Amino acid sequence: MDKYEKVIELAKRRGFLWPSFEIYGSTAGFWDFGPLGTALKRRIKEIWIDFHVIRGGFYEIETPTMCIEDVFVASGHVNNFADLMVECKKCGEAFKVDSAMEKCPECGGSLGEVCAFNLMFKTSIGPGSKRIGYLRPETAQGMFVDFHRLLRFYRDRLPFGVAQIGKVYRNEISPRQGTLRLREFTIAEVEIFIDPRKTEHPNFEDVKNVVLQLYPAKEQLSDGKTLKLSLKDAVEKGIIKQQFVGYHIAQIQLFLLEIGFSQEKIRFRQHKNDEIAHYAIDCWDAEALTDRFGWIEIVGIANRGDYDLKAHAKHSQNEMTVFVPYDKPITRERMVIKPNMRAIGRKFKDNAAKVTEALRTLSLDQFEEGTIRVGDEVIPLTKDLVKYELVSEEISGERVLPHVIEPSYGIDRIVYVLLEHSFDEEEVEGERRVVLRLPPNIAPIQGVVLPLLSRDGLDKKGRWVERSLRKNGFLVDYDESGTIGRRYRRHDEIGTPFAITIDHQTLDDDTVTIRDRDSMKQIRVLIGDVPSVMGELIAGGVIFEKAGTLI
Amino acid sequence: MDKYEKVIELAKRRGFLWPSFEIYGSTAGFWDFGPLGTALKRRIKEIWIDFHVIRGGFYEIETPTMCIEDVFVASGHVNNFADLMVECKKCGEAFKVDSAMEKCPECGGSLGEVCAFNLMFKTSIGPGSKRIGYLRPETAQGMFVDFHRLLRFYRDRLPFGVAQIGKVYRNEISPRQGTLRLREFTIAEVEIFIDPRKTEHPNFEDVKNVVLQLYPAKEQLSDGKTLKLSLKDAVEKGIIKQQFVGYHIAQIQLFLLEIGFSQEKIRFRQHKNDEIAHYAIDCWDAEALTDRFGWIEIVGIANRGDYDLKAHAKHSQNEMTVFVPYDKPITRERMVIKPNMRAIGRKFKDNAAKVTEALRTLSLDQFEEGTIRVGDEVIPLTKDLVKYELVSEEISGERVLPHVIEPSYGIDRIVYVLLEHSFDEEEVEGERRVVLRLPPNIAPIQGVVLPLLSRDGLDKKGRWVERSLRKNGFLVDYDESGTIGRRYRRHDEIGTPFAITIDHQTLDDDTVTIRDRDSMKQIRVLIGDVPSVMGELIAGGVIFEKAGTLI
Repeated sequence: MDKYEKVIELAKRRGFLWPSFEIYGSTAGFWDFGPLGTALKRRIKEIWIDFHVIRGGFYEIETPTMCIEDVFVASGHVNNFADLMVECKKCGEAFKVDSAMEKCPECGGSLGEVCAFNLMFKTSIGPGSKRIGYLRPETAQGMFVDFHRLLRFYRDRLPFGVAQIGKVYRNEISPRQGTLRLREFTIAEVEIFIDPRKTEHPNFEDVKNVVLQLYPAKEQLSDGKTLKLSLKDAVEKGIIKQQFVGYHIAQIQLFLLEIGFSQEKIRFRQHKNDEIAHYAIDCWDAEALTDRFGWIEIVGIANRGDYDLKAHAKHSQNEMTVFVPYDKPITRERMVIKPNMRAIGRKFKDNAAKVTEALRTLSLDQFEEGTIRVGDEVIPLTKDLVKYELVSEEISGERVLPHVIEPSYGIDRIVYVLLEHSFDEEEVEGERRVVLRLPPNIAPIQGVVLPLLSRDGLDKKGRWVERSLRKNGFLVDYDESGTIGRRYRRHDEIGTPFAITIDHQTLDDDTVTIRDRDSMKQIRVLIGDVPSVMGELIAGGVIFEKAGTLI
Repeated sequence: MDKYEKVIELAKRRGFLWPSFEIYGSTAGFWDFGPLGTALKRRIKEIWIDFHVIRGGFYEIETPTMCIEDVFVASGHVNNFADLMVECKKCGEAFKVDSAMEKCPECGGSLGEVCAFNLMFKTSIGPGSKRIGYLRPETAQGMFVDFHRLLRFYRDRLPFGVAQIGKVYRNEISPRQGTLRLREFTIAEVEIFIDPRKTEHPNFEDVKNVVLQLYPAKEQLSDGKTLKLSLKDAVEKGIIKQQFVGYHIAQIQLFLLEIGFSQEKIRFRQHKNDEIAHYAIDCWDAEALTDRFGWIEIVGIANRGDYDLKAHAKHSQNEMTVFVPYDKPITRERMVIKPNMRAIGRKFKDNAAKVTEALRTLSLDQFEEGTIRVGDEVIPLTKDLVKYELVSEEISGERVLPHVIEPSYGIDRIVYVLLEHSFDEEEVEGERRVVLRLPPNIAPIQGVVLPLLSRDGLDKKGRWVERSLRKNGFLVDYDESGTIGRRYRRHDEIGTPFAITIDHQTLDDDTVTIRDRDSMKQIRVLIGDVPSVMGELIAGGVIFEKAGTLI
């Protein structure tokens, strides 16, 4: 078994992940999150929200997963969001065309014509088939379509950002990578609308020394080496094209470290010219190192430029610009024309008033186009009819079409990779010990309460500890079956970081032991202090080796 | 404007809710949650999880919103999940048939034939149309399909429950109730699998005195009065048919009170015989009182019996029972037959061995059916061929098909109703003051930081307070534009419970004021204490009138 198989075996057996619809034979691209997988995923989502919404200041919104056709006609998905596909003439199996295939990889049959297959799921809204609906392949379009509402919420000022976590759907032709290529999955995206002339980030100083492992397009085409650079250097050398994008690349790394990634297993790979979307200005993938699949994308960040807003503005006939006031109004001199009353009077007599009126409405440009029509008469415009005058105008600002920076996280892949990175096996006293070394802040079950015996009042004390932890918001388990060693192993395997054991000493002095999953060390604490000690342990505020002094 | 209109006007203008796809003309049944609506909805979901998963002990799972056809063929949705529909022959408009309609309500045209319209959105999975997918109209089926995995996770013991929050979809024919009738919405469900012979709830004592406003089927058909009863009385009188269902009705009420409902605006209405699903044993709706729509369902609770597991067992050919061991094995005496060798020898001679062998495999029932075939010969079974013997058997337990209790919460309706119930208008100093009296634990923005001036260092102190609150997990806003009175009003209107004002005294003694939205009273606290005081205020641990002593 390779690591992928070991992780998936554990994930299925213990309730992290399993294929959907198993009793009906399953279908590729659909996986369920079981009780532990959902708890793990929920923690990651909670930290994502805390990082981006609470601390980051981007409000979250929620738009439907089903969209009307207009949205994806405008965005280009209806025409372009497709993979090339080929079907085997013999067995009928469909394949995504990745490279030159001649014979069916399943049965050796000959293949049909290559055609494009749109990856959006299509349906009809309401009775009949006249109103087409698509399941969104990204959350982004829901935010672009809401641009006016969001701009107003942010009181008409750039930059602003909005976040969204939700399901997206891609009707893959024949997904073959287990949990890593899903047809329905969860992404967490931020769309940051910026003034394209202001690509410096106000808080760049805070993160400029963050060291990144970068794999720029140039290195991919030459020596294949990654570069270790501070963000500041990467931006100054022009490898990352803008400070604003650079700031958010650093934020992606900080978030990934916060949920337990180690820096050596993350790199940022720049899109090469042949893969970058035609409209995008700069794109990077945060990639994580996996055992079977090598480096895989877990987060993407794109500078989408003005592509999306322009597309929706055009398709919906709504302007999607922002009025950006100048710091102080500027004064501009402009040449204008004014009717020369005397010359007009001389030349047009009875029609003079009408000609004067017509000239008043003309701009300089229009005047120079040559003629006006007064009644049935076409009058050639000659310079003697007007006076040229310089006037001063005060201009308070201008309308700007924002650019969009978009960090986009694949939450399900992050869940899988964290499981794989945490998976560890070791020999302890001649036995194989499997441990998921998940950081305490993301572990699905944060603590397990273990009465040494299920009698003598140990069980009652145990239930009391369980309840006090639940009341304080901890997701805990209670387990009284089997030997204590077996119960420790059971929880090591699912990554429970702390085990609270109720023993006979508990009955004497109201203390319990807390065992640390990784060091297997134990401390004793007062039973009433368990919730607060757990809080500190999970927040990482207490180093376990020192925690022994807490009693 | 009635209250619905007032609430929706506020919701749209301030960023709680607005119709989806507005720039493309919108489509009935789809609404976006804006920044404040999403924050409000997130808090309700968080409290729901805390209540049911953390404190309640039901693990959460996540199954796909898109399901393969088998799932809904088995559940009956493909055949039965439909509304009656009629189309206008003149204008083509489609209508749900609610009552006797003769002419089109839109144009007065004549109507076509009534037909059934299935309310599931249908699509195809992968290329071609051979694999049908449906968007789920409830999360429940995902849990039933996972029954074996879940049972194993819970170590083969009943009762157990699993929770799920997620999107569901109903392709309404022509939804006409704004945010209250959506085609895509969020529900939060628990499926509790119980032993049908054990309908008493182990923690019934904890909630037996909870007083409920009940509207039983009988009262709906007679005097139309609701009954105020303790849970205990309601169960004893047989109005609520089982303790287990009663326990969860009380839990629903406790949850609704926790997120801010007042008890007078909640009632539990029992399904009448003509509306209850044919398989269900007892069904109740928790209804909330609204201004325009009267009592509307916000939560349902159903005892689904064994309908779903039986249906999936049949369709998938998988047994879906639980082996329930007896407390101690029981011994049962059973009559068996044994071949009477001597009689057989006499009667069948050469064939005696074969007849003996055939008789050994027969049960008593089979023996009494009458004949056996030995070779080509049919032998009538007569009593003299066997001896009857009583044997003792030890039986350790039996297989049980669980029943399912399902509380199901409509999260989007709860959001709307809480907005409506919180909406308040009053005259203050001759001005109209609109206040959303949302409880602090669900208010989208928990506090707003207001520097009296945007200079003199007040802004810097303000930003410091904002950051310290965000670091501590509070969703706060910072607002320095306009008069302080106008800023208070702006936040009263969106329900921000606390306003932290930085004034000149802050520069002298590092204190700030905290203003309570509802009483408009203020207290002064040390700037460094703001996060902890906010925590206590939001948790409701400090009555504001007494909080003045905190300084």
